[in-house]
Amino acid sequence: MQSTASVDLNSDLGESFSRWTLGDDEALLDVVTSANVACGFHAGDPTVLRRTCELAAARGVVVGAQVGYRDLPGFGRRFIDVDPAELVNDVLYQVGALEAFARVAGTRVAYVKPHGALYNAIVHHEAQAAAVVEAVRRYDPALPVLGLPGSRFLDLAAAAGLRTVAEAFADRAYTPAGTLVPRSQPGAVLHDAEEVARRCVRLATAGEVVAVDGSVVPVAAESICVHGDTPGAVGIARRVRAALEEAGVRVAASA
Amino acid sequence: MQSTASVDLNSDLGESFSRWTLGDDEALLDVVTSANVACGFHAGDPTVLRRTCELAAARGVVVGAQVGYRDLPGFGRRFIDVDPAELVNDVLYQVGALEAFARVAGTRVAYVKPHGALYNAIVHHEAQAAAVVEAVRRYDPALPVLGLPGSRFLDLAAAAGLRTVAEAFADRAYTPAGTLVPRSQPGAVLHDAEEVARRCVRLATAGEVVAVDGSVVPVAAESICVHGDTPGAVGIARRVRAALEEAGVRVAASA
Amino acid sequence: MQSTASVDLNSDLGESFSRWTLGDDEALLDVVTSANVACGFHAGDPTVLRRTCELAAARGVVVGAQVGYRDLPGFGRRFIDVDPAELVNDVLYQVGALEAFARVAGTRVAYVKPHGALYNAIVHHEAQAAAVVEAVRRYDPALPVLGLPGSRFLDLAAAAGLRTVAEAFADRAYTPAGTLVPRSQPGAVLHDAEEVARRCVRLATAGEVVAVDGSVVPVAAESICVHGDTPGAVGIARRVRAALEEAGVRVAASA
Amino acid sequence: MQSTASVDLNSDLGESFSRWTLGDDEALLDVVTSANVACGFHAGDPTVLRRTCELAAARGVVVGAQVGYRDLPGFGRRFIDVDPAELVNDVLYQVGALEAFARVAGTRVAYVKPHGALYNAIVHHEAQAAAVVEAVRRYDPALPVLGLPGSRFLDLAAAAGLRTVAEAFADRAYTPAGTLVPRSQPGAVLHDAEEVARRCVRLATAGEVVAVDGSVVPVAAESICVHGDTPGAVGIARRVRAALEEAGVRVAASA
Repeated sequence: MQSTASVDLNSDLGESFSRWTLGDDEALLDVVTSANVACGFHAGDPTVLRRTCELAAARGVVVGAQVGYRDLPGFGRRFIDVDPAELVNDVLYQVGALEAFARVAGTRVAYVKPHGALYNAIVHHEAQAAAVVEAVRRYDPALPVLGLPGSRFLDLAAAAGLRTVAEAFADRAYTPAGTLVPRSQPGAVLHDAEEVARRCVRLATAGEVVAVDGSVVPVAAESICVHGDTPGAVGIARRVRAALEEAGVRVAASA
Repeated sequence: MQSTASVDLNSDLGESFSRWTLGDDEALLDVVTSANVACGFHAGDPTVLRRTCELAAARGVVVGAQVGYRDLPGFGRRFIDVDPAELVNDVLYQVGALEAFARVAGTRVAYVKPHGALYNAIVHHEAQAAAVVEAVRRYDPALPVLGLPGSRFLDLAAAAGLRTVAEAFADRAYTPAGTLVPRSQPGAVLHDAEEVARRCVRLATAGEVVAVDGSVVPVAAESICVHGDTPGAVGIARRVRAALEEAGVRVAASA
Repeated sequence: MQSTASVDLNSDLGESFSRWTLGDDEALLDVVTSANVACGFHAGDPTVLRRTCELAAARGVVVGAQVGYRDLPGFGRRFIDVDPAELVNDVLYQVGALEAFARVAGTRVAYVKPHGALYNAIVHHEAQAAAVVEAVRRYDPALPVLGLPGSRFLDLAAAAGLRTVAEAFADRAYTPAGTLVPRSQPGAVLHDAEEVARRCVRLATAGEVVAVDGSVVPVAAESICVHGDTPGAVGIARRVRAALEEAGVRVAASA
Repeated sequence: MQSTASVDLNSDLGESFSRWTLGDDEALLDVVTSANVACGFHAGDPTVLRRTCELAAARGVVVGAQVGYRDLPGFGRRFIDVDPAELVNDVLYQVGALEAFARVAGTRVAYVKPHGALYNAIVHHEAQAAAVVEAVRRYDPALPVLGLPGSRFLDLAAAAGLRTVAEAFADRAYTPAGTLVPRSQPGAVLHDAEEVARRCVRLATAGEVVAVDGSVVPVAAESICVHGDTPGAVGIARRVRAALEEAGVRVAASA
């Protein structure tokens, strides 16, 4: 009997800037179903955004806005204590800019996923989480948001009537509590393609993952995040997709 | 008998950035009918854009995208030899970003007006003029563009099927050929509010202006550009509007 | 009998950027003895730095490096969780850049004073405070640093062998514990020129200030910070200097 | 008999930025004798500058300031019509910033080499060439400048009393007139390591190069520029150095 499970594969794309290239976007766009396209505040420039939207649209990959702090020198990886009222506007600016390229590519921005330090901050930072929610709600209340299950961000988004898409991480170890093992700890990141692929299949079909202590914990995720910016990352992503399809999981955009 | 003439008044707005304030936007928004709102590449930041769009919308002032080179340190006033293919994308990015705030303010970007060195470059620079036209056409072929009569920009825009709005400058002297006296020459900029106002009325009602040599030259302009960033500028702009209304000219947005 | 007291007056200068002007630098340079010149990361551009150094040098005002977070859009007023190892380099970069203009103006960078959110962060943030100290020590261990008395920054600087200059704020209210009343509280900022001037004289001659509860608290400060970026600020600064001189206090740079 | 010839090998380094890596600086620093280190205006960030200076100093490679237009989004490859008075200050800022890291690394900025579009502009652009010369002269009149033989830049530098170092390009074809074949023409860039190496030996020992038409033209160059930012570039650079040493040419910094 075939599984009736379905899962979305998302990845950060469009992160090149000026003369600096990052990641193998074309390869990854053949694997994922949702492209989190950088919007120029922490990565990406107008020409990169245009090209990424066009490549995504040509493959039927859904375009999402990967919004971040305004911090090219830090690649959006440093917490910035932005005034929440200004953060609302920073997010609106980024979504609008990307929308122009989505439109030109014959598609549209279909969801919003915060990036880097902003993603991590709004797991707990109430005011910044509320700011991102407010920006999306003001821009288009029908726009779903991607984030960490249990985060303040997704909770506030749901309370505001936004559709929320919880995501899991293909290559990250989980604690028995169902949270991510911090990157600073050994074993936080998995590198074996087969193991990663197996875990993704179990996530998609059974909604569970084996934690670092061997216990099985439930993880409800509509989308799985794969990476493309490290050596071997594209290979792992390909293996994940193949394993999901072999297991009869439908791989399709959730937004 | 009342004049049946009609004219638009446009001005550059939203040019503050971060802690730095420029111009008296609120005062000028009570005078003009079209607001050329900076989009963040040469001036303006997301919070400034938001506020300017909301102030404009509240007064029924039409919002246009004041697009420029990506050059905050130069305020967009230096020619940059941008690759035309990249310039298309730089313009798309700016229009899209502003659109988000126009949307939130309950309105939309209603026209595009290039700024500063870009404005001057595309009077003659074929490839860059074509790039701006291409950006607007791709974004929305129904979007009008504001520019200098006789410029390559307006000519190419018209050839591409865009609606063009020719503008005149309230406080600039004209040559007998109908072009602007370069700023480097004495008398290039007029400072007397009454004289400026009188010239604007003649422009709007008779389509002509007295050149520096005293000859009368025809200037066909649907819109008149007034300034707000110098001392006394707002006062001149107010006088222009009052004089137009006293002369029975209908002051209304053209885009 | 004349007082034998001596005090430095410092102020943030060189904070204009591109077309945006901030503060009345020329007026303030006639009042202060130490100019904290912005270095381009949160404010200032090369031409502003050059001019500010030249104006300062021409008046015998000592030039210090006003270093901050790399954050023009936030004017350096937002905490950024910069990696301390990178913060060391950000500070070195800024001091070096300003040094070029100090050199051209016939002087040199004579001290370092952190700005805005960085100033506030390193009152308590051990790692960032250590980073700024490390930068100064590496650049020139003979360079004094200006900061808040009792801050981790000054303590670590002293421990590293740097000369520290404690500063007081002319227009700020103090708590009975000798710390600043937070700006969010009523009465935190004083606006009466005479009162501010009187307090500065008492600070310089007796090393004490009247706190908000009326108690007298000791404040040991070699330098007093005056502002120039608000209406009336230059007038207050002038009154402070005049009152100090009338009281026989020697107003001279400490660095 | 051994040649008594001597030549400098220079290369653009320190061009990574934020999370974006460019070139294999460590490998190239084992080959060259002069490192043109980017200064943060078109490439490079403070941490990259620090590391590049330290790696260079550790190998005895001389550090030069690779100054460019303020244009990270364009990597300094687009002409910008900067006001010459501002360009002077832009160059001073960059040299000063790099000097801080050279100092920390136990060395100093030993020469200045303009980059990209600025390099190309000042071959002919009188005012910008004079601006760069003025900046170097003001900063330190003992600082040599690297540039194209016959350029306005080197001519004005020499006239101002600066020491000039003319450079040749290892992998570029020359016209019979001794100028570079434009990149837009076929055969402009040479890719064969052996051929490039042979040409460099002839340049260093005989001061001549075979032009595209087979004629032999004199090229007086104290320094040869090698590249490190394209696939195979490091291999070519290594072959050039080995061939020079095999031919008895002394490879040593000229500045």
